[in-house]
Amino acid sequence: MTRLLLTLVFTCALTLAASAAQRQHIVLPRPTGNTLPFSDAVRVGDTLYLGGNIGLNPATRKPGATPEAEARLVMESVKRTLDAAGMTMDDLVQIQVFCSDLSTYDTFNGVYRTYFHEKFPARAFVGAGSLLFGARYEVMGIAVKK
Amino acid sequence: MTRLLLTLVFTCALTLAASAAQRQHIVLPRPTGNTLPFSDAVRVGDTLYLGGNIGLNPATRKPGATPEAEARLVMESVKRTLDAAGMTMDDLVQIQVFCSDLSTYDTFNGVYRTYFHEKFPARAFVGAGSLLFGARYEVMGIAVKK
Amino acid sequence: MTRLLLTLVFTCALTLAASAAQRQHIVLPRPTGNTLPFSDAVRVGDTLYLGGNIGLNPATRKPGATPEAEARLVMESVKRTLDAAGMTMDDLVQIQVFCSDLSTYDTFNGVYRTYFHEKFPARAFVGAGSLLFGARYEVMGIAVKK
Repeated sequence: MTRLLLTLVFTCALTLAASAAQRQHIVLPRPTGNTLPFSDAVRVGDTLYLGGNIGLNPATRKPGATPEAEARLVMESVKRTLDAAGMTMDDLVQIQVFCSDLSTYDTFNGVYRTYFHEKFPARAFVGAGSLLFGARYEVMGIAVKK
Repeated sequence: MTRLLLTLVFTCALTLAASAAQRQHIVLPRPTGNTLPFSDAVRVGDTLYLGGNIGLNPATRKPGATPEAEARLVMESVKRTLDAAGMTMDDLVQIQVFCSDLSTYDTFNGVYRTYFHEKFPARAFVGAGSLLFGARYEVMGIAVKK
Repeated sequence: MTRLLLTLVFTCALTLAASAAQRQHIVLPRPTGNTLPFSDAVRVGDTLYLGGNIGLNPATRKPGATPEAEARLVMESVKRTLDAAGMTMDDLVQIQVFCSDLSTYDTFNGVYRTYFHEKFPARAFVGAGSLLFGARYEVMGIAVKK
């Protein structure tokens, strides 16, 4: 009986601890420096809120030369952010792609789908007016740890 | 006493199960085919993350002929997605409308408000550069089951 | 023993109550009137979903005269919304800035960073086609109460 009660106490304590939801700010090294006023992501409990990722080439600090190269750079950036938060691409539940050149939609999708296994997050693909650094893509989203 | 303990065990188990947050990918039939790399929505526990909805006429695969017709098509698409997840429009908490023609703001609002009862979700209404399929509206959002 | 059991019952009840997640719609007075079909924010449990804030001058109902003035107006609007929900700027976890003039990026950042202490939310900064009322900035986001 006492053992059962103790188990219950621990179970409830764990549940409460989980709902208290610790907060972690993720700030990765950036090609453009780390002085800008944003975190790459904020994790609260099991949920990760990502900021906008763009596909800058770390060497040139410019967007990838081709749409395909840039799509890969931006998705690698998303992956690094998730990794730093202890998550994977398959934890993503919602994605927004802002794109300054909708004619590259198929190219982007070709790269994008290689980053997931079977099931995809919900996604909006929106034509932006223009993006910082002349980027073609900016990708943000929300992930929930499986 | 034993009965009380059992009740407690069940209560805690239920709470833990709820926080374990089952994941459901919602993929509806689409006018443009189902091969594109996204789900229409992902439900995790009580929260539904929607992708971007556009107002394509299922017959013509083109956006609704008038702003009003397209607004209705896009909102019906949102409604179908919520319905497939076992939710209703009143569960929506946050909406983003991307719009390629801000001059249709009042028309959109006229249709939009008919989809809610009394209280509205938070909403951003943003001028997009352009949208896929020449759409006027793309609507995404988050819902939390009441 | 009975005391321990009662404590357990209360603990579980509290946990369940928290997960039941009360919903609060926040609607503030607006320069443009309160008849538009959206809430400024919706709070569900500890999470606040904000709608789009723009930097209208309450007197003129026009966006702030300079980028700096408008940036301040829009951030004050975000702050008022959080305040009405019993939260602060430091509770923000994810921000989207839609901007119709990317050349004002540095000016916006200068104002933006004064609204936070040490750690920043994740953020996307996206070039919009255009914004309602001729605004330069529209800011939306998600906050989670610390």
